[in-house]
Amino acid sequence: MPEPAPIPMSATLAADEALARRRRAGERVLSMAGGEIGLPVLPVLRERLAAAAAENAYGPVAGSPALRTAVAGYWERRGLAVDPGLVVAGPGSKSLLFALLLAIGGDVVVPVPSWVSYAAQARLAGARPIPVPIRPGQGGVPDPDRLREAVVDARAAGQDPRVVVVTVPDNPTGTVASAATVRRLADTARELDLVIVSDEIYGDLVYDSSEPAVSPALHAPERTVVTTGLTKNLALGGWRTGVARLPDSEPGRALHTRLVAVASQIWSSPPAPVQTAAAYAFGEPPEVTERIAASRRLHEKVVRAVAAHFAAAGAKAAPVAATCYLYPDFEPLREHLAQVHGVHDGDALAGLFSERYGVGVLPASAFGEPGRPLRIRAATSHFYGTTDERRTAALEAADPLALPWIRTAVDRVGEVLADLTGADVPALVPHS
Amino acid sequence: MPEPAPIPMSATLAADEALARRRRAGERVLSMAGGEIGLPVLPVLRERLAAAAAENAYGPVAGSPALRTAVAGYWERRGLAVDPGLVVAGPGSKSLLFALLLAIGGDVVVPVPSWVSYAAQARLAGARPIPVPIRPGQGGVPDPDRLREAVVDARAAGQDPRVVVVTVPDNPTGTVASAATVRRLADTARELDLVIVSDEIYGDLVYDSSEPAVSPALHAPERTVVTTGLTKNLALGGWRTGVARLPDSEPGRALHTRLVAVASQIWSSPPAPVQTAAAYAFGEPPEVTERIAASRRLHEKVVRAVAAHFAAAGAKAAPVAATCYLYPDFEPLREHLAQVHGVHDGDALAGLFSERYGVGVLPASAFGEPGRPLRIRAATSHFYGTTDERRTAALEAADPLALPWIRTAVDRVGEVLADLTGADVPALVPHS
Repeated sequence: MPEPAPIPMSATLAADEALARRRRAGERVLSMAGGEIGLPVLPVLRERLAAAAAENAYGPVAGSPALRTAVAGYWERRGLAVDPGLVVAGPGSKSLLFALLLAIGGDVVVPVPSWVSYAAQARLAGARPIPVPIRPGQGGVPDPDRLREAVVDARAAGQDPRVVVVTVPDNPTGTVASAATVRRLADTARELDLVIVSDEIYGDLVYDSSEPAVSPALHAPERTVVTTGLTKNLALGGWRTGVARLPDSEPGRALHTRLVAVASQIWSSPPAPVQTAAAYAFGEPPEVTERIAASRRLHEKVVRAVAAHFAAAGAKAAPVAATCYLYPDFEPLREHLAQVHGVHDGDALAGLFSERYGVGVLPASAFGEPGRPLRIRAATSHFYGTTDERRTAALEAADPLALPWIRTAVDRVGEVLADLTGADVPALVPHS
Repeated sequence: MPEPAPIPMSATLAADEALARRRRAGERVLSMAGGEIGLPVLPVLRERLAAAAAENAYGPVAGSPALRTAVAGYWERRGLAVDPGLVVAGPGSKSLLFALLLAIGGDVVVPVPSWVSYAAQARLAGARPIPVPIRPGQGGVPDPDRLREAVVDARAAGQDPRVVVVTVPDNPTGTVASAATVRRLADTARELDLVIVSDEIYGDLVYDSSEPAVSPALHAPERTVVTTGLTKNLALGGWRTGVARLPDSEPGRALHTRLVAVASQIWSSPPAPVQTAAAYAFGEPPEVTERIAASRRLHEKVVRAVAAHFAAAGAKAAPVAATCYLYPDFEPLREHLAQVHGVHDGDALAGLFSERYGVGVLPASAFGEPGRPLRIRAATSHFYGTTDERRTAALEAADPLALPWIRTAVDRVGEVLADLTGADVPALVPHS
């Protein structure tokens, strides 16, 4: 059997699996690598899934009418009204993103840094990823000026860029691109005739409700595909449900037809019982919105406490405004890390966190960062407890940092950073 | 937005959706197009899924250890013992087949006729499908001599065939390739250094238990990947669960690594609650094996009754030995069809069934047949009733053909064929 080019395993999933193995082997580990949300299924959704257990028909490729109608309502409440006929559900937004790349064809512009799978998916789809850096604090959106340059250059070189992927709010930086940046991105995409695929899976996890993330679909509705799911806001990653909102335009409808055709050949339909429970969730009855709000508050408190430790240790980062991620830059500590630990880049830094301290984080290179930046991504979504009881307590606590298991995890980050940097253990988080 | 090459919608799923629309519009329709199994979820599996509704973690990309261990046992009981570490679960065997094509790379030999999605998937994966005809009655396995010729020619022409897909038992023909054919296929694949991907989703639906389907994995264990799922034997298509068995060889383990990497980038993991219920099913406790046996008996009785109508009408077909499919050839009626109906090929014949009689069938062209064969594929899996009560009664009936709703559907096929061919309405099925 001939051996084709290597395909990288998803860095987040690989790191999580490696850490789970070490934990089972009895090691003391702290997982900050993958962004899986460690919170229980909301009871009403558990009941809805259980009640749908007799559903075994495929149903429509694009998802059940009930699900698509509920999803259209979800988007309408966010200023993105859409015909349910232009909604496509799939077994996770990851699958939808890949199917979109196949359906659109051509090469793919990805932000730097960006989620581990965009570039890998582009390569699997036979495309070349075209990396374009973000501007500081504007995570997930390629700098519009550099986007223009890169696309013009790529076309001159014979490449065929047709789509730009953006992440609003952003993974890995935890920032939210400003309305102005999103508008400029939309204008530039129109000028370059690019489809925008806007991954908005963290849309419900912006801490400040007075400054929600702005979708490029507001500014370039004719060419923006929006994707989301229930993996982050409701911790339902293991249920595998994602949705896409196609543009209400002639090319948008043509893309819809192609996307459904790809879906019919690759996955047939999303899991039927999950569709029924997901339709209930996307309808956003009060218990669902309350759960999402509680999760958001929990992420914010824990992320900010951990961010304070990184800041105290001397790492730089744009203020986190959403998600459960930090993306600290240890550049100010470069000399110390080199002299004391022999660490010269993000990969070695992530290795140090893992080998010396049992702390799983991901290096900047996993997010497509070139060169040798001393950056890592850390997620706090595994801090909430290992049992449903603890996780529920974390959601319900007025001060989750006072819960001993969360306190221990956050303190551990402080200890590790103090040891790493040679500083005293900081005590920035007020004990209550 | 530039418009890339068209992607065909899955013919089976498209036909089912079109027929469902006509039924909702009040038309009298009989669906024989898609092969979805119209039977209820076995109660114990419904209970297992309901009990697993709190499971929301991704778990390992390849599926939970419990599921992979259960699947290894399922294969061991069929003479295909395997390390659970070489089992990969996915959201349907369709997704696994596609991921395998991506992971193997190169061009893909497909049998003619064969399932609608193999060639479409090969094209989506950037490969060229290389069609190789089957020998009569040996459905799903390319004629080994013609396979050798085609691969030698393709390589001489600069193509890169690396894999041959086979279907044992077969869709669309409902036949099972003989042990001798499978052995020759395996030998030829070894000679040509091709991976064999053996789609065995109908493996539990061979009517004669004394002559089970023979897997190429028995003859070429070092290079055969086997896929299956619970879609056909337990009617769980809507649950989306499939599994693959990788070869226990050095290239097999390398392919396993690549397959899991592709899975990690495209779908993360199969739906968690479904995995738990599927693990129970693959463990095959008595109620599961009894249900599978009852389904098999039901398919056999109904398919044979319908096949008798086609035979009486003058269509030819190899005897059906498995599945719920018929693949009748109307060549003996070519003159009549041309003169009376203006029908000259399978597409027009399927159109006539649909437009004039409201009977959904698929033309041979959907299965890759070139030329103008007067063949169609008909599935009987929608005949068992539209309610769980009727479907359960169908499973439990000693003589399902005596149930009025099944009788009506089977009789309707006879009426349609009589009208189509100008013959008297046959009454081959004994009324009880």
